[in-house]
Amino acid sequence: MEEKLNRLKEILGEVADLNQAASLIGWDQQTYMPEGAAATRGQQAATLGKIAHQMFTSDEVGKLLDDLLPWAEGQDQDGENYRLVKVAKRDFDQATRVPGSFIVRQSQAVAVANQAWVEARSKSEFSHFLSHLEVIVDLAREYVTFFPPAEHPYDTLLDAYEPGMKTAEVQAIFNTLRPQQVELIRAIAARPQVDDSFLHLDYPEQAQLDFSLKVAREYGYDLRRGRQDKAPHPFCSSFGMDDVRITTRVNTKFLNTCLFGTMHETGHALYEQGIGHTWARTPLASGASSAIHESQSRLWENLVGRSRPYWERYFPELQKTFPSQLGNVTVDQFYKAINKVQPSLIRVEADEATYNLHIMLRLELEIAMLEGSVALKDLPVLWNAKMQDYLGLTPPNDAQGVLQDVHWSWAYFGYFPTYALGNLVSAQLWEKFRATNPDLDDQIRNGDFSSLLSWLRVKIHQYGRKYEPQELVQRVTKSKIDPAPYVRYLQTKFSDIYGL
Amino acid sequence: MEEKLNRLKEILGEVADLNQAASLIGWDQQTYMPEGAAATRGQQAATLGKIAHQMFTSDEVGKLLDDLLPWAEGQDQDGENYRLVKVAKRDFDQATRVPGSFIVRQSQAVAVANQAWVEARSKSEFSHFLSHLEVIVDLAREYVTFFPPAEHPYDTLLDAYEPGMKTAEVQAIFNTLRPQQVELIRAIAARPQVDDSFLHLDYPEQAQLDFSLKVAREYGYDLRRGRQDKAPHPFCSSFGMDDVRITTRVNTKFLNTCLFGTMHETGHALYEQGIGHTWARTPLASGASSAIHESQSRLWENLVGRSRPYWERYFPELQKTFPSQLGNVTVDQFYKAINKVQPSLIRVEADEATYNLHIMLRLELEIAMLEGSVALKDLPVLWNAKMQDYLGLTPPNDAQGVLQDVHWSWAYFGYFPTYALGNLVSAQLWEKFRATNPDLDDQIRNGDFSSLLSWLRVKIHQYGRKYEPQELVQRVTKSKIDPAPYVRYLQTKFSDIYGL
Repeated sequence: MEEKLNRLKEILGEVADLNQAASLIGWDQQTYMPEGAAATRGQQAATLGKIAHQMFTSDEVGKLLDDLLPWAEGQDQDGENYRLVKVAKRDFDQATRVPGSFIVRQSQAVAVANQAWVEARSKSEFSHFLSHLEVIVDLAREYVTFFPPAEHPYDTLLDAYEPGMKTAEVQAIFNTLRPQQVELIRAIAARPQVDDSFLHLDYPEQAQLDFSLKVAREYGYDLRRGRQDKAPHPFCSSFGMDDVRITTRVNTKFLNTCLFGTMHETGHALYEQGIGHTWARTPLASGASSAIHESQSRLWENLVGRSRPYWERYFPELQKTFPSQLGNVTVDQFYKAINKVQPSLIRVEADEATYNLHIMLRLELEIAMLEGSVALKDLPVLWNAKMQDYLGLTPPNDAQGVLQDVHWSWAYFGYFPTYALGNLVSAQLWEKFRATNPDLDDQIRNGDFSSLLSWLRVKIHQYGRKYEPQELVQRVTKSKIDPAPYVRYLQTKFSDIYGL
Repeated sequence: MEEKLNRLKEILGEVADLNQAASLIGWDQQTYMPEGAAATRGQQAATLGKIAHQMFTSDEVGKLLDDLLPWAEGQDQDGENYRLVKVAKRDFDQATRVPGSFIVRQSQAVAVANQAWVEARSKSEFSHFLSHLEVIVDLAREYVTFFPPAEHPYDTLLDAYEPGMKTAEVQAIFNTLRPQQVELIRAIAARPQVDDSFLHLDYPEQAQLDFSLKVAREYGYDLRRGRQDKAPHPFCSSFGMDDVRITTRVNTKFLNTCLFGTMHETGHALYEQGIGHTWARTPLASGASSAIHESQSRLWENLVGRSRPYWERYFPELQKTFPSQLGNVTVDQFYKAINKVQPSLIRVEADEATYNLHIMLRLELEIAMLEGSVALKDLPVLWNAKMQDYLGLTPPNDAQGVLQDVHWSWAYFGYFPTYALGNLVSAQLWEKFRATNPDLDDQIRNGDFSSLLSWLRVKIHQYGRKYEPQELVQRVTKSKIDPAPYVRYLQTKFSDIYGL
């Protein structure tokens, strides 16, 4: 059995090498690739993906997993061997249940649908996208049929991003959360608005990049095993825990884009850099789920980076960097400005208090689409009604409404809820850490993030995908994913800022 | 047969994708990779190399090649199909003749020998490297035994870099060349030396990089399909003809390093960018040989970039870029300075008139090593004697003598002669082009390189590896590789500069 385990590890290692190389050439595509290389790069990526898939889904791997699973389970259910085999088996099933012919059909449909979505959004005409969305939704329904029946068909889609998570759990969480967030937003709307005009002055690019890199380094981002580059869309990409890179976008007319974008990607990067070397070149060398990953990016972006103690420490430096823009601004004014709450149409620009509502709206529509309880042609009307209901706004056109996100054209059904779940988990972890670190604000005020990072490393990062998300949150906080800490966090923070 | 050909192309295409991905992650390693990622990157590269090798050397490929070769040869010996199959068959034989166990042993020996060489050079103690060199030479002798007997065992080593080239041909060429270059150097040494002190002033890095990139662009380097980055050692790397990148090193105390280094790498890049798309994703999508590649880099670096008409056009711009350093220098002074001839100990710093002698010395020693006609322990003494003989210098220590080059520690036997052969071919092409372009100097003086580049594209670049080097040179110049044009070039140029 040891021999079989070693053989499995050998194959998984080579598959990991191929996947990491594929990620790296993808990173290059977003950062330094000359434009003329796009077609060639597509072929290189397709070949790497194809060979990695062939190697991973081979009969040999299937047989090794079947032989090893009962043996490893008998050894130690919390042991490395069992967890390795279990996660590999999960991935193997996922990769082999879906026929290659389906993947080809879906890829082709996505290519066409994405093109149609780009045009539809630019013309703001949902009808231009409708027939393509129908194909994509049909494919999502077909995808579900390749898996054992679940309580709800959406479970299967969700499971790809949140292993083990059920639609009913998410709905229960969101049902608790929704009225509280709606009420909070209404209370804020009744108060005088804060001024954030100074965030929209001219901020030179290089100074923004330099400051944001310093922020990332002080958080604990290890630049011996990482780096920051510019890219049109910010992301974090890992090619093994010893090479985890972030990218950043700069808006010279808005300070937040680069600054908080970098904090966000640094949160993802700290997670990837913290995964234990035990899991190197295995399928476990990545985050437990999309939501857990998002909990880390949100924690460093919002819980730390949008906190008052953080700016008590760093605002003087920021002022020195941008004296003409911020010289006359107080730390209190700055703190309020970066936390301004304003219901808005576009999810990616939403603040902490309104963000989750954008997600809930999408989840409700996705479930209805999958169930067939909504006619797709009615989506724009439904979208606008929910926007009015949750945020008190009506999009003036589909481009700023139902067509704003790329996800559906990519067939990413099941992904949206993870954004909101990540917010909730970030607050759960924050409360838990503060319980044994009552001086957390002082730590931040001293620019000392070492206790926090060490705790996250021990409690979350090191495990990689060893635990499923609910299992992991339960282990750390003694509770499953729970909206209460996030609601408490929002209420405390915005009561202070808006004097509720 | 068409079906078999398509199947072969499919496999070769995937092998090419893997090799290009491997080159790209190698490029990243030299440019942007964080230092902590070295070990991981080594594994990724090893896996890509291993899988590409397995796919290319499979029984299926062997059988396809055996079936296709006679069929394609019967079609058209100058046709794409025959040439594709022929070159693939050559590579297949090369890859399958050498046993995997030998490659492992050689890689291990190289790893150790290279380490020993680094130490030996830093201590300037040849004895520290001797026993490792013995292993490397024994392995080179063993490598030769995997191939059919050749006229000279060195032929087999040379053939890996110069397909079809014989040791006796190179020796005949060098025997003609040597006395003429030695005589030229002696004549120059009797004349007053030119002053190049102004090349060694402070030249700020960014201005050097900007100017060199402009130089590359004006040569015709297509930045839609290429880019320039900094790296510790300059190189050109291709990931398909639509993504060909150069790297540059800057010395802020010596203008030549970045400027002529960039011209050199641009020459390589123009070749790779000019390969016909017919050969995309095939083994033919690369230069005909190391010497032909070097002919392109040398042509743009020296024949164009160190010419008087070039600087008549560009020196005023260079002066504007570096007014305090070059404001009082005339174009004549500058032209002489960048062409200063001075016998020196280190090959990579050698000028045009002395460079080939460094190569000849190495070739003679390599042949003697392979034949066993020299005791390896005597190499330092032999090296120094030849240096005295050819260049009138004696190295003060082994670090500046026999230990200066990395090649032997890498088991790169057979590579050195291609540097000198490239110089010769560059002058042959230059004479040939000038014969139908008598206004070549005016073209250069106008900053117009389009006729020259188009001619090289048509005569050399487009073919990739379709023709072997001697076949290609013969087609273009009606002569095999011939030292006479290079000698004429040197004599004309340096008679003018040194008033011989």
